[in-house]
Amino acid sequence: MSLIVTGTIGIDSVYTPHGQAERVLGGSCTYFAAAASFYTPVRIVAAAGDDLPAPFLETIRHFKRIDTAGLEIRKGSKTFAWGGKYRDNMNGRDTLFTELGVLLETPPKVPANYVDSKYVFLANTHPAVQLGLLENFPKRKIAIADTMDLWISTARPELEKLLRRVDGLVLNYDEAELLTGKANTVAAARHILEMGPTFVVVKKGEHGCLIVHRDGMGALPAYPAEKVIDPTGAGDTFAGGMMGYLAQRCEQDAAADPRSIDLVRYSLAHGTIVASFNIESFSLDRLTRLSREQIDERYNEFARMVRVH
Amino acid sequence: MSLIVTGTIGIDSVYTPHGQAERVLGGSCTYFAAAASFYTPVRIVAAAGDDLPAPFLETIRHFKRIDTAGLEIRKGSKTFAWGGKYRDNMNGRDTLFTELGVLLETPPKVPANYVDSKYVFLANTHPAVQLGLLENFPKRKIAIADTMDLWISTARPELEKLLRRVDGLVLNYDEAELLTGKANTVAAARHILEMGPTFVVVKKGEHGCLIVHRDGMGALPAYPAEKVIDPTGAGDTFAGGMMGYLAQRCEQDAAADPRSIDLVRYSLAHGTIVASFNIESFSLDRLTRLSREQIDERYNEFARMVRVH
Repeated sequence: MSLIVTGTIGIDSVYTPHGQAERVLGGSCTYFAAAASFYTPVRIVAAAGDDLPAPFLETIRHFKRIDTAGLEIRKGSKTFAWGGKYRDNMNGRDTLFTELGVLLETPPKVPANYVDSKYVFLANTHPAVQLGLLENFPKRKIAIADTMDLWISTARPELEKLLRRVDGLVLNYDEAELLTGKANTVAAARHILEMGPTFVVVKKGEHGCLIVHRDGMGALPAYPAEKVIDPTGAGDTFAGGMMGYLAQRCEQDAAADPRSIDLVRYSLAHGTIVASFNIESFSLDRLTRLSREQIDERYNEFARMVRVH
Repeated sequence: MSLIVTGTIGIDSVYTPHGQAERVLGGSCTYFAAAASFYTPVRIVAAAGDDLPAPFLETIRHFKRIDTAGLEIRKGSKTFAWGGKYRDNMNGRDTLFTELGVLLETPPKVPANYVDSKYVFLANTHPAVQLGLLENFPKRKIAIADTMDLWISTARPELEKLLRRVDGLVLNYDEAELLTGKANTVAAARHILEMGPTFVVVKKGEHGCLIVHRDGMGALPAYPAEKVIDPTGAGDTFAGGMMGYLAQRCEQDAAADPRSIDLVRYSLAHGTIVASFNIESFSLDRLTRLSREQIDERYNEFARMVRVH
């Protein structure tokens, strides 16, 4: 067991043209770990307040391969809460409120036995916190970070330091433009490579993703989805499926390099598929009813959809 | 020789953030035929006025495999002219002017020896004109039509009649929504299938394309382009590369069905690649300097970019 994710446990309130879900389980760590657990055991490092409803913990533990030893429930603290409303076309959303709660306190502690983690995903938070967490994993084979517009605008020096320390960066296409000032996504990603990482994964939502890697490029469409109920967690389940696949694959084959362009591209396709299930329902509802067989079946369908040789 | 395209010869004036090109060669038929000619001989049916500059004719004839017997130069008529300005992100454009000229006259005549054409592309024009042209090709194996918002809004009955007669429809994602009232692209394309065609190709510009076919779906990203000088003609060169490949492939293998989902998907990848060259320069400039070897090289690179098995 050597995949680890650091991030948030959240209480989400989501409003979409198709309906709403108030105070449901969310958070980057939750979505990532649930997605990754279809591939490999996954450790989580996150903190929540003692207001976290007991059924939420049960949902997390429903995913048997999530190791919750690194999940801190802090007495008297408030769990991170977020509310968002999706626009009519589901492509944009507005944040209604953010209650940082426990995120304003000290970062969660990394359990001592997690030190041997080899595949590290730093979900979106302040890059200084990400850097501090990264220090805990000296035996890592790969570290990938997520980031967002807020940190690009307010914590650029720390983000630049982080970029010199990670192998990969995952971000949205508009964040890539914000970070580099380049409107062309390929040009923006190339610019980010110069800042340190071996590869950059640019997420484009319903339009798929692009990878710009020191050894070349890759591009994938999203799975063509007719049923999009709630896009919340799409990015985190994408990353979870991606890292889950990478960890599983490299644990099976010690010679495999998780940073190689082929493996990363395959992993993006897995992330694409897990995310395509997640958006079919609110919160983690669809993932709790998902099987690895269903993932593999859709993966094979997707592979046919993009086959050009 | 059995690929044929009906469409326009145009005089374009294009303004982009990178520069401008005034009164240069354009038109759907021109772009399509130039693109297709890298794969197979192609017949054109189009009309222009005698104001068409002589160098434009030379450029068309530069593509040796374009058969210009069906190109009418009408005395005293004016060539179709269009002016457009691209917005800063190159994803949208505004029409500055349209001078229909010869397009207001009777449609071009189809030469008698073109009656044996097997692969028919009806570039964008009034659907009643497309229907009339289609009648000329009773031996066709496949007919694909392009359309646009104008006809969806103003000539729906004729467009619906056309859709019952063609094998495939090519249109932009926003046009698919306009035609069906469905914002989800997959749902919109499925709806169009019910209107008649065997498959629908939805173009998404820099985000690639989607095919919804009676036998399944396909999805491809665009080629990740860093150098986008002028997107004019991207849709027509996409269609030209697509039909050129289909015609070439089916002429080599009489058992191949040009309407099969696999062949159509391969053809979309060829269209993607030819279009990716076209946008690197104004007018047909890049295509006049392009070789089939360059197309194949980039095709192979693209195939690696989307390979997930």
